[in-house]
Amino acid sequence: MGKKDLLSTEPYKGVRDFYPEDQAFLNYLIATFRGALERWGYVEYNASILEPSEIYKAKGSENEEVVREQTYTFVDRGEREVTLRPEMTPTVARMVAGRRRELGFPLRWYSIPNCFRYERPQRGRLREFWQLNVDIFGSSSLAADAEIIAVSHAIMMALGAKQSDFIIKLGSRMYLDTLMQNLNFDEVQGKKLLILLDRSSKMPAGDFERELGEMGVSLEMLSPKTPPQDVLDVMERLKMMGIENAVFDLGVVRGFDYYTGVVFEIFDTDPKNSRSIFGGGRYDNLLALFDDEKVPAVGAAAGDETLRNFLETRNLMPTYLPPTKVYVALTSESLVKEANKVAETLRQGGVAVSVDFGEKKLSDQIKTATKHKIPYLLVVGENELSSGTFVVRDLVSGEEKSLSRDGLLSFFLNL
Amino acid sequence: MGKKDLLSTEPYKGVRDFYPEDQAFLNYLIATFRGALERWGYVEYNASILEPSEIYKAKGSENEEVVREQTYTFVDRGEREVTLRPEMTPTVARMVAGRRRELGFPLRWYSIPNCFRYERPQRGRLREFWQLNVDIFGSSSLAADAEIIAVSHAIMMALGAKQSDFIIKLGSRMYLDTLMQNLNFDEVQGKKLLILLDRSSKMPAGDFERELGEMGVSLEMLSPKTPPQDVLDVMERLKMMGIENAVFDLGVVRGFDYYTGVVFEIFDTDPKNSRSIFGGGRYDNLLALFDDEKVPAVGAAAGDETLRNFLETRNLMPTYLPPTKVYVALTSESLVKEANKVAETLRQGGVAVSVDFGEKKLSDQIKTATKHKIPYLLVVGENELSSGTFVVRDLVSGEEKSLSRDGLLSFFLNL
Repeated sequence: MGKKDLLSTEPYKGVRDFYPEDQAFLNYLIATFRGALERWGYVEYNASILEPSEIYKAKGSENEEVVREQTYTFVDRGEREVTLRPEMTPTVARMVAGRRRELGFPLRWYSIPNCFRYERPQRGRLREFWQLNVDIFGSSSLAADAEIIAVSHAIMMALGAKQSDFIIKLGSRMYLDTLMQNLNFDEVQGKKLLILLDRSSKMPAGDFERELGEMGVSLEMLSPKTPPQDVLDVMERLKMMGIENAVFDLGVVRGFDYYTGVVFEIFDTDPKNSRSIFGGGRYDNLLALFDDEKVPAVGAAAGDETLRNFLETRNLMPTYLPPTKVYVALTSESLVKEANKVAETLRQGGVAVSVDFGEKKLSDQIKTATKHKIPYLLVVGENELSSGTFVVRDLVSGEEKSLSRDGLLSFFLNL
Repeated sequence: MGKKDLLSTEPYKGVRDFYPEDQAFLNYLIATFRGALERWGYVEYNASILEPSEIYKAKGSENEEVVREQTYTFVDRGEREVTLRPEMTPTVARMVAGRRRELGFPLRWYSIPNCFRYERPQRGRLREFWQLNVDIFGSSSLAADAEIIAVSHAIMMALGAKQSDFIIKLGSRMYLDTLMQNLNFDEVQGKKLLILLDRSSKMPAGDFERELGEMGVSLEMLSPKTPPQDVLDVMERLKMMGIENAVFDLGVVRGFDYYTGVVFEIFDTDPKNSRSIFGGGRYDNLLALFDDEKVPAVGAAAGDETLRNFLETRNLMPTYLPPTKVYVALTSESLVKEANKVAETLRQGGVAVSVDFGEKKLSDQIKTATKHKIPYLLVVGENELSSGTFVVRDLVSGEEKSLSRDGLLSFFLNL
């Protein structure tokens, strides 16, 4: 086959390949999410990435356009319109509504799905991304709002963050609704103001004030003397749980048709990462799309890419090490069977071992171990097998140690 | 919203929702795969489910039709033809070819991707399924063929199977090629015979012999006196690793354009599960689609549904238990904050706790714990808080135990 016929080795536009180091990072995130969430009593669910398009279109007035322009939507061979999920919330609402009678409330669920959006790929926003979703269904208590924020905080801490590395900004849809009434704003004016508030953190203060002025609103009229009551209540609960980095912020608005109560976003305090890391809030009406019974809900989500940016900035990325502890190199291809016997003793003891097939010379086999970042090397040759003495080399320090066949397992178990 | 406006809570056709018990089973499979494979020195990779359609069309002559008829393929908003991966092998071939110079060979990789095919859903075959993929790249040694079979065997054993529960059937493309030459068959006749051999295990013996006869072939001409040399070699290596349930079987053919050496399939010995559980073999030419350099490869795959059928038939399904150990019920909504303090001590010690929000009466809170299959209940009320004595109830046996606040953690840690 000539060079011109070769297929590209690039992935599809805007998505990522997960080579072992990338996959290890994703696995680290997933394990950290799981560890923190399970301690708080959350259980994992998932669903197919394929969903009928109608569940995204139905979510709110402007959503048909979003489905048409920002999702992967196509017609299948059976004439069904199907969408690769751009987010998990409609799916989990569907699942909870589908078994409402069997599930016990409050229900604490989490999932780490991959989601898709057809947008221009940019820093922190790819076309396929992994997203943690944490939700509580069936509670109207502000204790549930506080808990969702507390578990998001717990995950940040489990990833190695200090409280000073990030800030939790709380907003309140209730307050915004009251504000609209006080200003005598109709829905159109209200939405315009919400959009401006949403953008406020990303624009110069002067511009914000000027645009506010054009709507007949002053900064004074906007700012409450104290934070709204629901935010104050949640902040007090957070303080009781040792969470000191939560503040009220008018600019936290989030989805217009979606959220119904307290909303929040977690930001890196380093302005280099301007995208919110966690975001969520109360959405008490979404299940009504599927079910006549009202089921209150509060949830949060975090994407893998924004978390990665945070961890890189904060120097909190885990070091990659393969699970393999020992690489067995051979002086001859004919020794694979004997080498596998030595390896099997280690495996039985729970030590992860790769055995080379001995097709290349010893120095090349050692290069393979080094490329794979395997920490230890064990050479198996005729001499080693007949004498029963094996040399283990630390591939980082170069240190070597002679061990009997029986001594190998305890050496690796005691590392 | 009237009843007629409600959206369906059913998933998209042919795919599954993973409620917590389903997800727990998938997680059990994944953890078992990982445990076994990492002991053999395999590392995990993954990729996007979105791939350019051309990598499936290019795999062999009949593949354009397969892509057209049995995959989810569509044109994206940027006019690219894209396919939801129906299998992982072209993807991994692309990834290995893309970094051939940096990766060290032999390379041992595994992945547990979800894959998609547009087919009529049936037992053991859904439109979205999870599939373990294990591969070794860069070795021509039959030791690599044997190892791929050995790790498949190791996974079956790690799932609780006995060697008598399953059988490993080995076939040989080399032998089949020789057979075609001996029969003087051209490519068309050869393919016809391979298709018949592939079907042979599913048809009555008489029909098989009759159809063979129509092709001018007798059973005698087909059966070698001894298994082919490559299969014998691999079987001997397997025996040395304690694997006794491998046999030569002419009916193991697998993909026509794909495999180049020893092929194998693992079957339940109970004929109720007729679909192969693991399948794989050597495919030395696939990377040539992406790369001028030849990279030999051998691999295996197993689907989650066929494994589930096997485990159910063999009574090897794990029992579902949520990660949550204790459910904290409240006598009043106002006690959430105090209850969270009690819970926090347990969480810090690593015990998974859910705290109810106290919005319903106590008996309903206990029902929630039972619905969630949480094993222990802890009631927090004014009395418990003032006396410092808490009752822990075993929700299965009904047994109760009085414990001091300090005694709670050690009770749960010593379970």
